[in-house]
Amino acid sequence: MFQTFDDTANPALGAERAKRLRDELLQRGLDGFLIPRADEHQGEYVPPHAERLRWLTGFSGSAGLAIVLLEKAAIFVDGRYTLQVRTQTDIDTFEPKHSSEEPPARWIEEVLPKGAKLAYDPWLHTVDAVERYRKAAEKAGGTLVPVDSNPLDAVWNDQPAPPMAMVTPHPLDFAGEAAIDKIKRVATNLMSDDADAAVLTMPDSIAWLFNIRGSDVPHTPLPLAFALLHEDGHAELFIDERKLGPDTHAHLGNIVTVRPRDEFGTALDDLGGAQKTVLIDPTTCAAWIGARLATAGAEVKRNADPCELPKACKNKFEIDGTRAAHLRDGRALTRFLAWLAKAAPSGGVDEITAAKKLEAFRAETGKLKDLSFDTISGAGPNGAVVHYRVTETTNQPLKPGELYLVDSGAQYLDGTTDVTRTVAIGEPSTEQRRHFTCVLKGHIGIATARFPDGTSGAQLDAFARMPLWKSGLDYDHGTGHGVGSYLSVHEGPQRISKMSHVALKPGMIVSNEPGFYKAGAYGIRIENLLVVTEADMIEGGERPMLGFETLTLAPIDLNCVETGLLTSEEKDWLNAYHARVRKALSDGMDAKTLAWLKEATRAI
Amino acid sequence: MFQTFDDTANPALGAERAKRLRDELLQRGLDGFLIPRADEHQGEYVPPHAERLRWLTGFSGSAGLAIVLLEKAAIFVDGRYTLQVRTQTDIDTFEPKHSSEEPPARWIEEVLPKGAKLAYDPWLHTVDAVERYRKAAEKAGGTLVPVDSNPLDAVWNDQPAPPMAMVTPHPLDFAGEAAIDKIKRVATNLMSDDADAAVLTMPDSIAWLFNIRGSDVPHTPLPLAFALLHEDGHAELFIDERKLGPDTHAHLGNIVTVRPRDEFGTALDDLGGAQKTVLIDPTTCAAWIGARLATAGAEVKRNADPCELPKACKNKFEIDGTRAAHLRDGRALTRFLAWLAKAAPSGGVDEITAAKKLEAFRAETGKLKDLSFDTISGAGPNGAVVHYRVTETTNQPLKPGELYLVDSGAQYLDGTTDVTRTVAIGEPSTEQRRHFTCVLKGHIGIATARFPDGTSGAQLDAFARMPLWKSGLDYDHGTGHGVGSYLSVHEGPQRISKMSHVALKPGMIVSNEPGFYKAGAYGIRIENLLVVTEADMIEGGERPMLGFETLTLAPIDLNCVETGLLTSEEKDWLNAYHARVRKALSDGMDAKTLAWLKEATRAI
Repeated sequence: MFQTFDDTANPALGAERAKRLRDELLQRGLDGFLIPRADEHQGEYVPPHAERLRWLTGFSGSAGLAIVLLEKAAIFVDGRYTLQVRTQTDIDTFEPKHSSEEPPARWIEEVLPKGAKLAYDPWLHTVDAVERYRKAAEKAGGTLVPVDSNPLDAVWNDQPAPPMAMVTPHPLDFAGEAAIDKIKRVATNLMSDDADAAVLTMPDSIAWLFNIRGSDVPHTPLPLAFALLHEDGHAELFIDERKLGPDTHAHLGNIVTVRPRDEFGTALDDLGGAQKTVLIDPTTCAAWIGARLATAGAEVKRNADPCELPKACKNKFEIDGTRAAHLRDGRALTRFLAWLAKAAPSGGVDEITAAKKLEAFRAETGKLKDLSFDTISGAGPNGAVVHYRVTETTNQPLKPGELYLVDSGAQYLDGTTDVTRTVAIGEPSTEQRRHFTCVLKGHIGIATARFPDGTSGAQLDAFARMPLWKSGLDYDHGTGHGVGSYLSVHEGPQRISKMSHVALKPGMIVSNEPGFYKAGAYGIRIENLLVVTEADMIEGGERPMLGFETLTLAPIDLNCVETGLLTSEEKDWLNAYHARVRKALSDGMDAKTLAWLKEATRAI
Repeated sequence: MFQTFDDTANPALGAERAKRLRDELLQRGLDGFLIPRADEHQGEYVPPHAERLRWLTGFSGSAGLAIVLLEKAAIFVDGRYTLQVRTQTDIDTFEPKHSSEEPPARWIEEVLPKGAKLAYDPWLHTVDAVERYRKAAEKAGGTLVPVDSNPLDAVWNDQPAPPMAMVTPHPLDFAGEAAIDKIKRVATNLMSDDADAAVLTMPDSIAWLFNIRGSDVPHTPLPLAFALLHEDGHAELFIDERKLGPDTHAHLGNIVTVRPRDEFGTALDDLGGAQKTVLIDPTTCAAWIGARLATAGAEVKRNADPCELPKACKNKFEIDGTRAAHLRDGRALTRFLAWLAKAAPSGGVDEITAAKKLEAFRAETGKLKDLSFDTISGAGPNGAVVHYRVTETTNQPLKPGELYLVDSGAQYLDGTTDVTRTVAIGEPSTEQRRHFTCVLKGHIGIATARFPDGTSGAQLDAFARMPLWKSGLDYDHGTGHGVGSYLSVHEGPQRISKMSHVALKPGMIVSNEPGFYKAGAYGIRIENLLVVTEADMIEGGERPMLGFETLTLAPIDLNCVETGLLTSEEKDWLNAYHARVRKALSDGMDAKTLAWLKEATRAI
């Protein structure tokens, strides 16, 4: 199993751990400390030794920040986690705050005592974040000070060791472009950006650039490492050599200089000494790196990670790989849905059973490397919790009359998947069907969009929402996120969101996942992955257009569709999609599933 | 007539005038001069004495910049004017440049000789623009220097005098809120912005705030003036007192201190001397003002004009006024369309005749104060020129088989209108009907939108385009602009455009004008004005939504509609709109027009 259902949080430990941390701060002459949910690479998943926020507070969400002062402490989480934080954390010790309504910087400004020294670990905060906190501390009449060693680590007795997973080469058949060519391409862009070198701190950029994969964090095949790319095409990889076997050494041999992780700091000093212009991404680069470069005399240039955009635009091999991954994954999901259709109404299926069964079907493909995230398996009211994680405590049976929402994905060598289906257990109500159909109309609005080059996700997002808006409804999350190629299931720079002004480019993979959530009752989400394509030239058209190809292949529950609410174009799309799903998945499918699939994909 | 059809440009004068300007520059020891199409207030319309760019180059467009160096000169215009500039300007003297593809700052950087002094009139450029030009000049190794008196004015012998039109109070029945209350409201906002005072330089902000109107520029009832608003609610208006009659003096008496225009500079000095924090809008405020404040010791704070947003959100009186204006204007336009339907097919109507006739129908309402812009009256290929202005030279007859596009508007005391209709002369072709219907579908997509508070024009813009995008077509202008209340026909901050991230708020008026342009053949645009409203709560809905009420009342040419391409919802909208138009306009309409109107608004 790539997923556990344990309830790891224990609020009772918070007070004692906060005290130990405060004692340590006092000993060091400090008045406060910032504890983010982050490691040195600012990824979504962090290794166990970096789960400092969870150890201290009990809070297990994927984003958050605690600030511990000598007299008071607070924990800041976003809208997804405002309920969860109260069940996992001792709120007398850590006052819960909504991070956008009451941002940490404002709290610092208001609460930090005059003259106080607020400390931070410069490896765990981005350049941008530290600037915000520094301004706030100074407004309060205090100072923000970096620490050389983390005071929380000093009191965390049984802190795990950093991960040491082996790194493997990522085969060219899947990567589609030799590392040496990628390096040349990105280095050329550096030159036109007037930068002499770039610091790479995001492990997925490093994995993509050098065609390697690792296993240092859950669910994403990342090697934790740093790299420098010079504009002449010379690259340096700073990594613990114990992670590299002979194959990987051979693969890396000619494309990059492998150096011990310990030499990273002096390499930055060398860039500074030579007065180089060095590019960092201030939204992801650790403040430690920015400060070291500046101190050494480098001209620090702030810009997006230079691998981010080329990595997002998948090549033909990556797209073919992801198509194969989706075909395989669609078969597994469809076997699960067919099993569920039979097993659930007769009782005995609960959220954990379902999640385990789905993982088993995926494992039976023989190609499953990991889940791409913990499966969201939500029955009835739990489906309305957008980022629900089922545990033994929250586990619910799937009851007739309820909707069941399952959002899951897999990591295969040839691609990363992410799919959500919502199915009715038994007969759905009229209201459930109406809401499901609104969400489906929005999903189709995105799937069928055509748009010129230069169009951003912000311009398309409302197409997923308008059917809901016209019904006085909405959902409080973005419509789509970028997805990697056997990499992060959430990657940038593109998104479908009112906040995303990055142009959608051919080869980008993006999710299409409108939803509707009725608190205490049910959640609905329909999610397929799409790849941006150059649309066929339309007869009578004058300008080339882009469009989407839907990658995900699995039936959408027709029992939940109110046909009368669909336009004829929307019906055409649904029938064509289901015909394609049926055709693609039939091959080699067992007879029972096949019979169910035919019925599930019937034309309406 | 509020419009002329003269061809004012004479390219032949450019060389000689450039020489006179260069002689003046040489005498002053200067190496170049920037000539923008702007006055001290950065409005869309400028008074005759500020038409310096036109005098120098012949170019009559509404935006542009010439840079005259001793050895070479260039004129920068945007995409609307790249063709026009070549017909109006001596391109041997002024090299034409596309202002976004080859921005003036980049040209300065590349072309300005080392050590050169490039001069500018600090009254005619914004704070932001001067910063751009300064950086460019310094990169070239030169300097950007302000002049005390404009060297072009020194050689423009017959330069007209500045305008001296009378200012009148704007009645409370139309304004809906007393000036004293507006002042209090805006001053309170200043306080929460931590500013002690704001400089108002946009005449429409001043007109709105003090409930006055003027007549210093064409088509917009603006009084050219400056104002200061202090956070305690004290306001000062700097204006030539000859513009104020006794009524206006009485109206202004208790709400604002009227001071001579000449005292504006010393008033800025006083703010500086008292070390006040003064808000300016760097996108519209003249550089002269910013520099004067800074020199005097003020802390200059950059922010949007504090009147812009409150002015944009119309109150009940303004909305009722604009509804009355649209009813009146719709009747005039409908009389014109009925006349056109009869007169055009039998020949003898040309673009100028049509524009004159339309103005005559508007004048017959007895309420017409001005056109809100020069009527765009484009037959056949001229309809494809987005910002076409008909002159005696370009005038074309309306020929059967062609489309005729007429974009026009009026200024009434109770409201400003702006409407475009495209009609077929004779029988339209299948292609014309298909394109017209695509544009209509986009228009309906905007008109029927529902959206939550916080939604911006950027999120809605694509609804106007998707039917075109799905046909491989598009248009190269925004979908909608804000409109004032007996003020500017183009006002901010809201727009419907992929660039506009300002939230649409109840009471904002915005145009809805998708189009399609087939170069050399025809243009199609369907434009109504909309007001943002709080939509009725939808049954089963959970969240309040905003929506649009269409203000414009005039038939959309059904001969151009391909009914089979409309969804049933789109047909419902068109029929309901036409029923509303018919009902609203029938009252008191002459019999001939009424008969035509009934047919033109028949249900389909």
